[in-house]
Amino acid sequence: VAESDALVGRGVGELDTPMPVIDLDVMEANIRRLADYARGHGIALWPHAKTHKIPAIAALQLAAGAGGITVAKPGEAEVMAANGIGPLLIHYPCYGAEKWQRIAGVIEGGTPVAVAIDSFEAAEPLAAALAARGLRADVLIELDVGQHRTGVRSPEDATALATRVDALEGLAIAGISCFPGHVRGEQEAMPSLLAGIEQMLSETVERLSVAGLRHDRVSGGGTPAAHLTHLTPTVTELRAGTYVFLDRSEVAYGPLTLDDCALRVHTTVVSVPEPGRAVIDAGSKTLSDAVVLGPGGGFGAVPDRPDVTIRALNEEHGYVELDSGAARLRVGDRLAVVPNHVCACVNLHDVVCGARGGVVEAVFEVAARGRVR
Amino acid sequence: VAESDALVGRGVGELDTPMPVIDLDVMEANIRRLADYARGHGIALWPHAKTHKIPAIAALQLAAGAGGITVAKPGEAEVMAANGIGPLLIHYPCYGAEKWQRIAGVIEGGTPVAVAIDSFEAAEPLAAALAARGLRADVLIELDVGQHRTGVRSPEDATALATRVDALEGLAIAGISCFPGHVRGEQEAMPSLLAGIEQMLSETVERLSVAGLRHDRVSGGGTPAAHLTHLTPTVTELRAGTYVFLDRSEVAYGPLTLDDCALRVHTTVVSVPEPGRAVIDAGSKTLSDAVVLGPGGGFGAVPDRPDVTIRALNEEHGYVELDSGAARLRVGDRLAVVPNHVCACVNLHDVVCGARGGVVEAVFEVAARGRVR
Repeated sequence: VAESDALVGRGVGELDTPMPVIDLDVMEANIRRLADYARGHGIALWPHAKTHKIPAIAALQLAAGAGGITVAKPGEAEVMAANGIGPLLIHYPCYGAEKWQRIAGVIEGGTPVAVAIDSFEAAEPLAAALAARGLRADVLIELDVGQHRTGVRSPEDATALATRVDALEGLAIAGISCFPGHVRGEQEAMPSLLAGIEQMLSETVERLSVAGLRHDRVSGGGTPAAHLTHLTPTVTELRAGTYVFLDRSEVAYGPLTLDDCALRVHTTVVSVPEPGRAVIDAGSKTLSDAVVLGPGGGFGAVPDRPDVTIRALNEEHGYVELDSGAARLRVGDRLAVVPNHVCACVNLHDVVCGARGGVVEAVFEVAARGRVR
Repeated sequence: VAESDALVGRGVGELDTPMPVIDLDVMEANIRRLADYARGHGIALWPHAKTHKIPAIAALQLAAGAGGITVAKPGEAEVMAANGIGPLLIHYPCYGAEKWQRIAGVIEGGTPVAVAIDSFEAAEPLAAALAARGLRADVLIELDVGQHRTGVRSPEDATALATRVDALEGLAIAGISCFPGHVRGEQEAMPSLLAGIEQMLSETVERLSVAGLRHDRVSGGGTPAAHLTHLTPTVTELRAGTYVFLDRSEVAYGPLTLDDCALRVHTTVVSVPEPGRAVIDAGSKTLSDAVVLGPGGGFGAVPDRPDVTIRALNEEHGYVELDSGAARLRVGDRLAVVPNHVCACVNLHDVVCGARGGVVEAVFEVAARGRVR
């Protein structure tokens, strides 16, 4: 990116806006905190790169002890592998001839790849593509533990699918995975939710064992319940993604504050048509449309100005409303916004700055941005 | 883009998914329809490139008679100008030293640029940047006609600002603009809304005339009310953007059908965990988070399968729900989705295919994608 070099050494207050800026100290603390938790509980951390899509940040996660990196799409796997990032887990039921060939290409290039799968229909052609090139991938059978998204519906179904998949040349069962996306916040029912998940996972592992299949990898996931992973002790791996930056939604779910959020989008007030409201140069094409349901509402938080609310977004316009009594805003003033959903936000940008003490230290190309295939 | 050449000549049903595909016949009909309307009413069409961000499509709009192309950010202007697209209207109150220099660069490169502005604070430094390089831009003063976003609040304020701006070396008043974003759908109050807008615009033009200022450009905008522009006869220019593709939100507002929507995202069913629901490989990173409020709800329409609803999106997952009695979906089946907000959708993609009769004829790089600065 042409503008990159020129930005290093600049104060973040001098950056052209809108510009996402990572506080590197906060990000490194986030990486360290979950790495320590996982290490302390004997859980392997497999950070999901969907949040940052930046190989250099995946490298920091690996350096902090991660067992590997998780991605969703073959295009993301290609970007990571091309930058020396691995081993990889493609935690997505990829379907399509080009995808299967691209996965084969990544493995052929020397990066170990495991895949999560929940149907024989998706497994069989992938196995054929790999076998035809003399390659092999480990497979985790995805089990639905309550989110009702992807995943087979019972330990019996998981074992039956695992048995069929393990018989395919090109694929080898290594265990199971789940996404407990429904476990978040301070739910009354949390203990029974977690007990139910543990019961499903342990029963599946037992059945795989009886069937003579590998079951040493049991992958769980998600930032909202990451700190509860040890309460489902069958889980051996954790696929959290958002934890690296955190965002306003995660703050709404858990024991975090806006100070734990590593990424802010620096914006400029471009219009103050009348007292009490203003417009910033960040709309849905900068922050994403993601709404947070929680205290304050709105499309992003402004920690330095708690007296303002981003009440609506158009594509390039953020509508800012001032509390009564708030200090007025002027055209040219700057507001640093913590996005509601940082994964969706970063995916809109070609570059993200990394700063320390308010000075740009690195400019990251969001290399896997837009890799939807 | 490396994959581009290989895609031309392929059937759209063979494209790797998710992939946005423009039906070129439908798009050309959309371009023609609004061009004919504008020509018939003596209105100059200035299509907003925010929707497609593709110079080749801007060129088609110019070839159909457009007076120029509208953009929001200097980065978009640079991409368009570099591809020979102009004259340009930057309809956004740009604020920032780099932006002013970049606008100057576009003009210096030979592309005429007009800007819309609603404050002296944004006008003065732009004027200085232009004057320092011996350049000049036309200015439209933006007037708030009821959307309450940007724009000065009264004809008096517009005239006062115009007078100050016109005195600046580097800028010259050419008229006014407005964005009637609140005029949409079948509102009872439509006639009085339009009469109020016409009253504000004509009063402002009259005041500019009395002040001895140019007022020959009166720019109105927006697809939802585009077909009503002749009912505000003071408007001389129209800045519609979405009309080129149309989308599910526009269909909800007006007299259009899903058949008028030129862009569909081709997706694949990747998981069918149980009868009655399925998951497609298009989530919010493919379709955007934009919700439509209207009949059917959901995050996109599937015209060929009206018996399915996209009831939720995660980043890479679309949750599909089948009506009772709907033919079942299988892993590998394909669904073509009309997005809720096509501008937000296209902005997520590096390439978009153009097809005719189901065969890919062109692959467009979304060259101005992500140009938020």
